[in-house]
Amino acid sequence: MSTYSYKYFNVTFPFENVAHVEINRADKLNAFHTEMWTEYGTVFSALSVDPNVRTIVLSGAGDRAFSAGLDIKGGADALTSSSDLDNARTTWGFKRMIKSFQDAIGSVDTCEKPVIAAVHGIAFGLAIDITSACDIRVCAADVKFSVKEVDIGIAADIGTLTRLPKIVGNMSWVKDVAYSARIFGAEEALKQGFVSAVLEDKKKALEHALKLAALIAGKSPVAVQGTKRLINYSVDHTVQEGLDYTQIWNAAMIQCADPTEAIRATFSKEKPKFAKL
Amino acid sequence: MSTYSYKYFNVTFPFENVAHVEINRADKLNAFHTEMWTEYGTVFSALSVDPNVRTIVLSGAGDRAFSAGLDIKGGADALTSSSDLDNARTTWGFKRMIKSFQDAIGSVDTCEKPVIAAVHGIAFGLAIDITSACDIRVCAADVKFSVKEVDIGIAADIGTLTRLPKIVGNMSWVKDVAYSARIFGAEEALKQGFVSAVLEDKKKALEHALKLAALIAGKSPVAVQGTKRLINYSVDHTVQEGLDYTQIWNAAMIQCADPTEAIRATFSKEKPKFAKL
Amino acid sequence: MSTYSYKYFNVTFPFENVAHVEINRADKLNAFHTEMWTEYGTVFSALSVDPNVRTIVLSGAGDRAFSAGLDIKGGADALTSSSDLDNARTTWGFKRMIKSFQDAIGSVDTCEKPVIAAVHGIAFGLAIDITSACDIRVCAADVKFSVKEVDIGIAADIGTLTRLPKIVGNMSWVKDVAYSARIFGAEEALKQGFVSAVLEDKKKALEHALKLAALIAGKSPVAVQGTKRLINYSVDHTVQEGLDYTQIWNAAMIQCADPTEAIRATFSKEKPKFAKL
Amino acid sequence: MSTYSYKYFNVTFPFENVAHVEINRADKLNAFHTEMWTEYGTVFSALSVDPNVRTIVLSGAGDRAFSAGLDIKGGADALTSSSDLDNARTTWGFKRMIKSFQDAIGSVDTCEKPVIAAVHGIAFGLAIDITSACDIRVCAADVKFSVKEVDIGIAADIGTLTRLPKIVGNMSWVKDVAYSARIFGAEEALKQGFVSAVLEDKKKALEHALKLAALIAGKSPVAVQGTKRLINYSVDHTVQEGLDYTQIWNAAMIQCADPTEAIRATFSKEKPKFAKL
Amino acid sequence: MSTYSYKYFNVTFPFENVAHVEINRADKLNAFHTEMWTEYGTVFSALSVDPNVRTIVLSGAGDRAFSAGLDIKGGADALTSSSDLDNARTTWGFKRMIKSFQDAIGSVDTCEKPVIAAVHGIAFGLAIDITSACDIRVCAADVKFSVKEVDIGIAADIGTLTRLPKIVGNMSWVKDVAYSARIFGAEEALKQGFVSAVLEDKKKALEHALKLAALIAGKSPVAVQGTKRLINYSVDHTVQEGLDYTQIWNAAMIQCADPTEAIRATFSKEKPKFAKL
Amino acid sequence: MSTYSYKYFNVTFPFENVAHVEINRADKLNAFHTEMWTEYGTVFSALSVDPNVRTIVLSGAGDRAFSAGLDIKGGADALTSSSDLDNARTTWGFKRMIKSFQDAIGSVDTCEKPVIAAVHGIAFGLAIDITSACDIRVCAADVKFSVKEVDIGIAADIGTLTRLPKIVGNMSWVKDVAYSARIFGAEEALKQGFVSAVLEDKKKALEHALKLAALIAGKSPVAVQGTKRLINYSVDHTVQEGLDYTQIWNAAMIQCADPTEAIRATFSKEKPKFAKL
Repeated sequence: MSTYSYKYFNVTFPFENVAHVEINRADKLNAFHTEMWTEYGTVFSALSVDPNVRTIVLSGAGDRAFSAGLDIKGGADALTSSSDLDNARTTWGFKRMIKSFQDAIGSVDTCEKPVIAAVHGIAFGLAIDITSACDIRVCAADVKFSVKEVDIGIAADIGTLTRLPKIVGNMSWVKDVAYSARIFGAEEALKQGFVSAVLEDKKKALEHALKLAALIAGKSPVAVQGTKRLINYSVDHTVQEGLDYTQIWNAAMIQCADPTEAIRATFSKEKPKFAKL
Repeated sequence: MSTYSYKYFNVTFPFENVAHVEINRADKLNAFHTEMWTEYGTVFSALSVDPNVRTIVLSGAGDRAFSAGLDIKGGADALTSSSDLDNARTTWGFKRMIKSFQDAIGSVDTCEKPVIAAVHGIAFGLAIDITSACDIRVCAADVKFSVKEVDIGIAADIGTLTRLPKIVGNMSWVKDVAYSARIFGAEEALKQGFVSAVLEDKKKALEHALKLAALIAGKSPVAVQGTKRLINYSVDHTVQEGLDYTQIWNAAMIQCADPTEAIRATFSKEKPKFAKL
Repeated sequence: MSTYSYKYFNVTFPFENVAHVEINRADKLNAFHTEMWTEYGTVFSALSVDPNVRTIVLSGAGDRAFSAGLDIKGGADALTSSSDLDNARTTWGFKRMIKSFQDAIGSVDTCEKPVIAAVHGIAFGLAIDITSACDIRVCAADVKFSVKEVDIGIAADIGTLTRLPKIVGNMSWVKDVAYSARIFGAEEALKQGFVSAVLEDKKKALEHALKLAALIAGKSPVAVQGTKRLINYSVDHTVQEGLDYTQIWNAAMIQCADPTEAIRATFSKEKPKFAKL
Repeated sequence: MSTYSYKYFNVTFPFENVAHVEINRADKLNAFHTEMWTEYGTVFSALSVDPNVRTIVLSGAGDRAFSAGLDIKGGADALTSSSDLDNARTTWGFKRMIKSFQDAIGSVDTCEKPVIAAVHGIAFGLAIDITSACDIRVCAADVKFSVKEVDIGIAADIGTLTRLPKIVGNMSWVKDVAYSARIFGAEEALKQGFVSAVLEDKKKALEHALKLAALIAGKSPVAVQGTKRLINYSVDHTVQEGLDYTQIWNAAMIQCADPTEAIRATFSKEKPKFAKL
Repeated sequence: MSTYSYKYFNVTFPFENVAHVEINRADKLNAFHTEMWTEYGTVFSALSVDPNVRTIVLSGAGDRAFSAGLDIKGGADALTSSSDLDNARTTWGFKRMIKSFQDAIGSVDTCEKPVIAAVHGIAFGLAIDITSACDIRVCAADVKFSVKEVDIGIAADIGTLTRLPKIVGNMSWVKDVAYSARIFGAEEALKQGFVSAVLEDKKKALEHALKLAALIAGKSPVAVQGTKRLINYSVDHTVQEGLDYTQIWNAAMIQCADPTEAIRATFSKEKPKFAKL
Repeated sequence: MSTYSYKYFNVTFPFENVAHVEINRADKLNAFHTEMWTEYGTVFSALSVDPNVRTIVLSGAGDRAFSAGLDIKGGADALTSSSDLDNARTTWGFKRMIKSFQDAIGSVDTCEKPVIAAVHGIAFGLAIDITSACDIRVCAADVKFSVKEVDIGIAADIGTLTRLPKIVGNMSWVKDVAYSARIFGAEEALKQGFVSAVLEDKKKALEHALKLAALIAGKSPVAVQGTKRLINYSVDHTVQEGLDYTQIWNAAMIQCADPTEAIRATFSKEKPKFAKL
């Protein structure tokens, strides 16, 4: 098992092939600054190619917040452009910075393994960008979600406005919460399809996520990780293009030891054993 | 404040920076003819660039209908092609006409400001095209929606069939109501995600819409109108393309006085004041 | 009326202009093998251009299953590549096979007429690919759905992973059921938007589907089949592209006898009669 | 014949169904300012739907220039933002302005009739944006083309950078002239595919363009204008999408009197007569 | 070796793994009617999956024409719609017919093997649609090309207008020949990039094509046919999408015996022998 | 000035703001292995954000070759998959490797500054992938280009097949050289638009490239680098999308000190001085 040691994230392995990433800055409500989101990208890039990892759970340390979003101080710094640049050069600098920020948060999207977010307490602003990039979202009953960015005078730019309309099915609601920045809770998130399960509290939500992660980790990694790739590809393409890509993908991937092992295990009522990926 | 004086639409300003557009042909159930949808496009094109307007509410005058759709007479006229044209030339003429019609109704989509539809009573045919192009939809409990077009022998062509699958999350239901032209009510619309709130009656629905409009109008217009643009862009593009466009958009738009004002107001517990846009 | 005689499918005409396709291999839980999915494609290609058919209902024979998915034997055969080919050539062969399989199951998508799936009992694996390609899905209360493929070590490749994210509105749920292969029932399918109606049992579900099919078959086929085409086109394109295509489509299609007949029938309170298409 | 009377453009009708638009500000080398490009859009929008017009030739008045591009003064004005706006609001204003400018110059692209540019002398900056949006480009031997924008510190934004890579076949050359702003002449333009004919001088280039316009104007307008639309559509879509759109387009457009007339005229060796479009 | 026996096409095998398809209706200048283009599609669909075929050459029988295009009689029949259909139904019928026609001619595009057109004499109308769908075009010095369709009052709809802008690099020229229907010869076709070689006469052009076909047929079919697929895919997608598809394609296809054999043959100066595909 | 010290690449700064990257493995004909293409990506990622660099020239050391392509040994290693993996896992590994390889070579495409390739001698296989990703290509008269991959039994997968069809304008020629792997020289490359200039020998080609680089480096970096971005964006999008992106890009970028400086310098006949970017 690889060792994962980070300043702002605890990475543990509670079950075989399951990684748990915990945002670890509870005293600041797990708010993110530049160093932190850079590290976040590093964590998921490493997990993406670790053959011992098959599923990942993401949660926030402490009782109060999954994450309060962008650290006000860090954000304010970023918004203070040095005075000797003209506006075009300032824009150019911000563009590079936003790209790096998006790439770091989007590392969960490009991560080859499924990532399940277990969300509790405050989940504002950047917390929506982060969880929108995850594959599966479950939450505790106490969760407080908010697309908070308009309240600080900006449009959300690290993924919320791009991904939210593609992961829920009520555009009227998406725009309602995105324009108003109002807080919405667990039941509303479930009803509108932003999460797929609501649990009693943080502990239960995390248990649920870890148990689901363990279930998925027990299945063929070629099948599961292929499923993630094919769904993500299909969301971004026409039906026919999705089918075309699937043709070549699966033509290669079914030349695999896993179907035989899966069928053997089913008949012998054993747990299947799949090689690393 | 600009003066808005139209034949078929009342435009008023019930709150600061909030415009209320009322379809004003109650004696004909607010049915639309050519002159009327042309004027409709004019109204929203004007509001789009009016610096005093930040959000818009759209509703229908009278108790009975938001809109009964296309005026039978107007529609019948349009369907009567002059007999001395061959079919190709007739098609060419209809194509120009449909484009103009789509452009007029779609002016709400390209309008820079959020538009909230408050729908009550009859909302048939064109009413679905119109509300589908709005950002947020709320309705009264008495609403009667219908994708009515197949009942007059045509496929809906002013936006319903294009936008409906992108704003709700149950394609089986979309096709059910689009093929059958059956009437569906407020609760079904809410459950399927066509509206995001149901209110007791027309009065309450309008109040709710205006209150939401006022709330949003109190926020940074750079942030809110940027949010509309980025969501609409993202719906039509891949995730990565949405993020790319957001990079350059926000790199420019965060060079803005509004974040400072928003933070100042939050700390001083005052209402923030944002410059016109 | 044409005669439809097939080995694995019963094709009957319970109402005027309504075809009922029944998967007819109840002793094997309606599982599919190569000969069968090839025939399936033939059935829908024929119905697509039969002027006597306006809507189609698809169901499975027997009490136990809509379909248990791919026939294990057939599937296993397909996965056994002959040993004298190198991997590239084996991949090439699988690619051709998957394309044929996708084309056969996708024949429902390209079928010009609306297809309504009435699902009951077991609906595993390929059953999800099949029903995802249908226009409307209704089910019996006893239904057991599962995106079963990962349990046999492969990613679903005949359409599920491509179409499912486009027909329901909760991506978190889509990935949950696609990664875990867990069984979900009628209520969950309804809540998440995979089906648009749940009926008491198979008989009621089929009756509901047939009644809906008959209702739609009574309407203008130019309008209904145009509606199918325009919705499917719009799902795969930007809003503006959907509108552009609609312009030329409807400019031609409104030069039709059906609007006049529809209006005449409405006023005379008669059933309209539309010419074949 | 309609009357076209403009301040900055002469519109004449040298042949039946052929319009000639001449940029008429020779004393300023036909440089454009805001009022002028606004009028330019108006000219082509009117010609687009004039049934007496089938082809259009665009040229510049005077001996020295097709157009020297953007008027320095006008451009400088546009670049002077009022000082009391923050950068975000300034950007917003420029965005609206650039969109209007693009729409005006792009009116040639959306104009239903073919537009042939006959270019001579100086053709700098905006002249490339303008001619890139035309269908066919011919030039005089004395022409001096330049993608001049980088020499005044901006990237070309009215269409050159978007259209040039799609209308010539040597991307290395496109970037060479776009980065260096160097002047290139008639032979180079012909060799690289920016123009399709080089004539001895301005008079000959204009004659060639008008003769070609007259030739095309003698053909079926349904066929010619359909050809423009189908080519432009295809450039922006995949091969299959281009074919799909063509299917519905031509299915409607071949129900036309023109094929019969064209064939009749061929056999009787007469000039065919086609109805207006 | 399979036997290929057709009514309108001679299929021979002049070299190992090289098929030669000759349009065989010289007495009618190889003009196409419905039965003929249907058969044409059948020919290429069969060759596409014949493991003995690696490259294909297409030419026209007789001295005078590669093909004069659509057979006037056949075409006229197709344009005569039966009088008892309304225009919408007539359009629907034409749409189906054009789709079948496009699919047949496009079978060369979807054919897995490279197809080289050797063109001589008259090559009008449909001949451009046909050759545009081929991979490589060479011609005899006597060739007379024409996008002839506008001269019979229609826009080309079987592929010319979609593919021509994507296979040559001078859009001004594309529109010139498409609008004017003027004849262009071998040198112009070479200069504009429509063909890649001009030979002295038909015999030499065919020899050149067959020799090139034989050269390519001697190389790895996995490499060559993969190259066709990857180029065609890339033309229809963004650079990044092309690269993404290439990743999965080649990851599978390099697990192949051919690289080893190719390198062995190079070092031993022998002709490599590749397994069938 | 930053120090650039690499194992396989010489990076020098022959003119102000101009970097020269020389592939430095002349004894192996500048063939690439894994360590080398990884370093190549590092070089261009660093140059991309170095404010002292405005244009870059790429060439190969030694008299004989720009690059002979992939190092046979390195390539062979990569093609030897470890025997204990099933084919699916082997494919997965290759996919990751090809992606890394593409990303490294594509770093020139995403590099913010223009890159000019000066090519001489042998330029086989990977050399085409590399130069296709550059902005501008010039060559010496002795150059020998070849899309060599099919000769070693694979399809080119590091960019050639994706980019080549987008940078030249004769698809027949593209497929000719890609299927046949035949060598083509400087004049053919110029005629077909693969290069934009041919010089007498390597020394002259490099001088030409450096002089062009210096010329471009003297212009506004905001304008030049914006031009690169807008052209690359436009190639991958529809005309309207290209224009849309340009609107927001330039609305921000024209708030720049460079236009004023450029105009001042022109009037005072001085060399303009632009701030770093």
